[in-house]
Amino acid sequence: MDLLKLFYGLSFLTAVLAFAFAAYLYLWVKKQRTVNARIQEVSALIKEGANTFMRREYSILARFALVVAVIVLVLLPTPIWRTERILDNVSIAIAYLIGTALSAVAGKIGTLVATLSNARTAEGAQHGIKPAFLIGFRGGAVMGLIVVGCSLLGVAAVLMVVGDATILLGFSFGASSLALFAKAGGGIFTKTADIAADLTGKVELGIPEDDPRNPAVVADNVGDNVGDVAGMGADLFDSNVAAMASALVIAQSLSGSYANVPMVFCYAILGLLASIIGIATARIGPHGNPTRALNSSTYVTTVVFLVLTAAATALVDGFSWRIWGASSVGLLVGVIIGITTDYFTDDSRPIVRKVAHASGSGPAFTVLSGVSYGFISAMPAMVGIAVSALVAYQLCAPMGDGYAIFGISMAAVGMLSIVGMIISNDAYGPIVDNARGLAEMGGLGEETIRIADELDSAGNTVKAVTKGFSIGAAGLTVISLLGAFMSEANAALAAAGKELLTGFDIMEPTVFFGILIGAAIPAVFSAMLILGVDKNAQRMVAEIHRQFNSIAGLREGKAQPEYDKCIDIATTGALKELIPAGLMAIVATLIVGFIGGPLAIGGFLLGDIVSGLLIALFMSNAGGLWDNSKKYVEAGNEGGKGSEAHKAAVIGDTVGDPFKDTAGPSINTQITVVSLVSSLLSSLFVAFSLFG
Amino acid sequence: MDLLKLFYGLSFLTAVLAFAFAAYLYLWVKKQRTVNARIQEVSALIKEGANTFMRREYSILARFALVVAVIVLVLLPTPIWRTERILDNVSIAIAYLIGTALSAVAGKIGTLVATLSNARTAEGAQHGIKPAFLIGFRGGAVMGLIVVGCSLLGVAAVLMVVGDATILLGFSFGASSLALFAKAGGGIFTKTADIAADLTGKVELGIPEDDPRNPAVVADNVGDNVGDVAGMGADLFDSNVAAMASALVIAQSLSGSYANVPMVFCYAILGLLASIIGIATARIGPHGNPTRALNSSTYVTTVVFLVLTAAATALVDGFSWRIWGASSVGLLVGVIIGITTDYFTDDSRPIVRKVAHASGSGPAFTVLSGVSYGFISAMPAMVGIAVSALVAYQLCAPMGDGYAIFGISMAAVGMLSIVGMIISNDAYGPIVDNARGLAEMGGLGEETIRIADELDSAGNTVKAVTKGFSIGAAGLTVISLLGAFMSEANAALAAAGKELLTGFDIMEPTVFFGILIGAAIPAVFSAMLILGVDKNAQRMVAEIHRQFNSIAGLREGKAQPEYDKCIDIATTGALKELIPAGLMAIVATLIVGFIGGPLAIGGFLLGDIVSGLLIALFMSNAGGLWDNSKKYVEAGNEGGKGSEAHKAAVIGDTVGDPFKDTAGPSINTQITVVSLVSSLLSSLFVAFSLFG
Repeated sequence: MDLLKLFYGLSFLTAVLAFAFAAYLYLWVKKQRTVNARIQEVSALIKEGANTFMRREYSILARFALVVAVIVLVLLPTPIWRTERILDNVSIAIAYLIGTALSAVAGKIGTLVATLSNARTAEGAQHGIKPAFLIGFRGGAVMGLIVVGCSLLGVAAVLMVVGDATILLGFSFGASSLALFAKAGGGIFTKTADIAADLTGKVELGIPEDDPRNPAVVADNVGDNVGDVAGMGADLFDSNVAAMASALVIAQSLSGSYANVPMVFCYAILGLLASIIGIATARIGPHGNPTRALNSSTYVTTVVFLVLTAAATALVDGFSWRIWGASSVGLLVGVIIGITTDYFTDDSRPIVRKVAHASGSGPAFTVLSGVSYGFISAMPAMVGIAVSALVAYQLCAPMGDGYAIFGISMAAVGMLSIVGMIISNDAYGPIVDNARGLAEMGGLGEETIRIADELDSAGNTVKAVTKGFSIGAAGLTVISLLGAFMSEANAALAAAGKELLTGFDIMEPTVFFGILIGAAIPAVFSAMLILGVDKNAQRMVAEIHRQFNSIAGLREGKAQPEYDKCIDIATTGALKELIPAGLMAIVATLIVGFIGGPLAIGGFLLGDIVSGLLIALFMSNAGGLWDNSKKYVEAGNEGGKGSEAHKAAVIGDTVGDPFKDTAGPSINTQITVVSLVSSLLSSLFVAFSLFG
Repeated sequence: MDLLKLFYGLSFLTAVLAFAFAAYLYLWVKKQRTVNARIQEVSALIKEGANTFMRREYSILARFALVVAVIVLVLLPTPIWRTERILDNVSIAIAYLIGTALSAVAGKIGTLVATLSNARTAEGAQHGIKPAFLIGFRGGAVMGLIVVGCSLLGVAAVLMVVGDATILLGFSFGASSLALFAKAGGGIFTKTADIAADLTGKVELGIPEDDPRNPAVVADNVGDNVGDVAGMGADLFDSNVAAMASALVIAQSLSGSYANVPMVFCYAILGLLASIIGIATARIGPHGNPTRALNSSTYVTTVVFLVLTAAATALVDGFSWRIWGASSVGLLVGVIIGITTDYFTDDSRPIVRKVAHASGSGPAFTVLSGVSYGFISAMPAMVGIAVSALVAYQLCAPMGDGYAIFGISMAAVGMLSIVGMIISNDAYGPIVDNARGLAEMGGLGEETIRIADELDSAGNTVKAVTKGFSIGAAGLTVISLLGAFMSEANAALAAAGKELLTGFDIMEPTVFFGILIGAAIPAVFSAMLILGVDKNAQRMVAEIHRQFNSIAGLREGKAQPEYDKCIDIATTGALKELIPAGLMAIVATLIVGFIGGPLAIGGFLLGDIVSGLLIALFMSNAGGLWDNSKKYVEAGNEGGKGSEAHKAAVIGDTVGDPFKDTAGPSINTQITVVSLVSSLLSSLFVAFSLFG
């Protein structure tokens, strides 16, 4: 077990290195100056708004987490009245709490840096694209490094202390239950504000985007931070932890090599190192293209990861080239999914232009063509995930029993290995988006706004790519979670002296039953979130109307709107609308489990994964497509701003907003939560079920 | 085998009875008078247009069918160079041709009667709701009786002659390949014309719906007939044949009772008898409610079927109460799915009103709320199908090996037993829709138009219900087709001396690979159809603009538009846009089969079924919801006609049109085609595949 100790040590060392580098970047960003008073003021408002939301969210979450921790303590992995090993229950409850805490810390720090970077990026843009790009990117990178550092540290620490990977599922469950709140709640927040601001500002009052007279404008900027930075960070923390945890659960159950568990850590370590190198080498010339700069850092990270893992495989006795192949296939497929997503959402490609052209015939055609291409865009990613799972399985199957599914989980680890880089790119987006708004509000002049626009547009393109990437990774991860669920269910079945599962046969009626219901879950879940945004936006619109009617001089810009009222509405509504959707998914899991037992749950997870992937890809891509086709029209095409095509494109964009920023990206988290609930409750489903 | 002979005889007798009753109804409808010259003229144009489309469609189809028949002859069930039993290949090719021919005949007769009934219904409405209702309903019933009579006759004849149920899959494949053209092609035709007519007429020129100056107006009415009557008839002919064929394939493979095959025929016979009784007893008072009249006929049919099958089970030795239970559960779940669908699409219920209310905030909210409720509406039907499959399975599993899946197929047969009644209700819709248009064009006065409107509105409500019903039935049918596929694949595996399939385990990578790709198919298929409608509507809009610009006096109503040009565009375009979508699904099946073999195909079918059900329910229900919420606004709510809410609701309706009338209902057929292609090619997939 010396090898394992070595890799525990290396994990801690790498995590510390990541934190140190993050601290360096943080200080570097902080050192940059802001002088514009108006920008400082608004930036402070955004920061305060984000803090308000996160404080409220975390105070609700802390209570929620404590309640769940008690439930976990009593019930998991075995009900406390039926087990001798109470220590396991205690460990899993503590692991759960650590998972929530680390996720909260990562989200908090990320938002802190993001709200620090936005003003500095805006003012940096006065000196050209180079300084502005670096501030935005490095601000985002702090989040990326913290998230990946925390996940590596947490997983290594929990496993080292308890020695049993099952406990890790508790840690992972903590991460994912927080991610559900952060991602879906943040998503509702951000789109509530965005839609309400657009509806009243652009449509009713005819004032420009980001106009300071609009009471929703600060809430809109806060939304970018809590939805896109904190939410997305929690989401990827969750995926990353889930991928590692399920790989480790499977690795521990394998016989044949002592090196499997260390290998999982090795890949995670090298992924983080590769991300650090990618981040450190990110550069742009004085007139460079920010999209290219972001993408080339991603490619650097990918190549460094492939080379480092190959070197490790050659050097360390017991590491296998087959596993290296599986992980590499996962990573490469991730890159390919990213590139195909780009094809559907980039405005230099035909699809965005076709949708913009269709807008000329009216909004119904914007919607119809966007929905259609959104559906088609799901195909390449689905095929990519299918092929990588098949190849990983076939590569690793000859290594022995259970290795095939381990191969798939290592493909997921591979796809997520460069997640530090992905988060950096992703968090860059809302920072520069905010910076654009601040440049407008601070009156920094046309050239600065143009630069901020260019940075922002790169953020949008890269965001679509990273989103496709993270959905793909989640797809593979949940396959390995299905494997982890089977291990857990079999452990429970063995303990109960029942026959073990050998798989989940579609022709079994309980499996089929589970599949059909599972497939409906992501549809209903995303619908509930979208309706939540709808309802909440209506509330905020009413508030904006109230302010314009009751605050004298607001319309003329002589009085300040009450920004905090809008932030309040977004905060309260987001948390209120989110809970039924989350509960629905969990209650459905319980019903299916107690009716059909572990077989039905296997089917349920499959249905949830497959339809979840489809709907998530559809929604994310259609949303990105509509957003960019609106921008394409605004750039002067198909009649430009103010034309009929533009009006139609704006409607498409509004439809796409909750698709791409609320529902689509929350589906991942819902799938992970449901998978983990299933794994953790497997012994209960084995003990009590109607047809199981 | 005497029992079987008896039921062959009874099948023929019942089919003849159905044809005789249909002939009686046809003559009754024909006897009704038309006197209005303008109505006669337009009605003749509609008839001619429908004939033009069907002639073209059938001439293409005849060539297509011959080519496929040759391919079938050479390859199926075993390539001709590798089999001793060439007669099987000949039989299957002939069965295929009979399937296409009977489907074509049923579609042709249905359209004939529908185009005969529309004018008579319009003029009947001058004398009140009672005569108008009866003409519309009986016209539709002719189609219902012919379709079910043909399917019973065809299945019984083919099985009696060849004795091998596998050959029936060829017959079923003939029915479904024609249905794909009729349903998807007809769907593209009807929505092309509908959208183009609305866009140019209502939106650009401000002339009312069905205004005779609009060159697309006849094409629009033709569309109702070829899409909703002929297409829907072919679709349900296909589902009905597929349900019987798969039940018979499974029944023949069962041991334990000689009565299984006769029992399948018995249920089909009693379903047809129940439908005849339901049709014969359909009545409405002089001031009656047509929706209630249609629904009560459906309930009569349901109860009669349950009683008759119970009596048969009690009387015939070898019939089982467990099977009766499975079939009854199927039928009852069908009714429940219908009722829940109604909840989401009926304007006296809250959902339609909520969407109408959301329209007040603009079209983006119409779309977002419609999409959300559309997704949610899929849940009850998915659960219903899941539960009925589970219950049917559990009921029949104790009867012995293979009976469980037979139970599921009998649940599908039960759900489809009353299909004669369902088709009658469904075909009633386009007839009264046409009648409304004719009453407008013939200037029959306000009261007549009001009555026609009432009949039309009942048609819309009932249509949503029957659509939910037929999607549910298709869901169960394809599960039994999955069972049929496994039987076929195992026969091929046994012949090749390979290991038999025991099921399709999700954890098998080839199965999983198939599932993911299968799940993407319905999304891409429906997207291609919608884009086809889009493209084709643009062509027709250009033609309408050309006519208004070049025909002097058209705008003033002094000159006739060239209706036939629009019909031409709809016809040519429909067939052109349909082919790539159909080919995509079939080619994907071949690729998956030759890569992953029978296991991958099992997964592929599952993925296709599950995501297909979800998307079909979503699209059909969202479309119905938008249509009715537009009507609700037009009835004077939320600001009524001309308000902002109305404009938004019209946009929602336009988005919903290709959802509910083109893509949604075509998905069934696509699933059936793909399932049958898989079953028929199973021996090829067994022989050649990369990972299989």
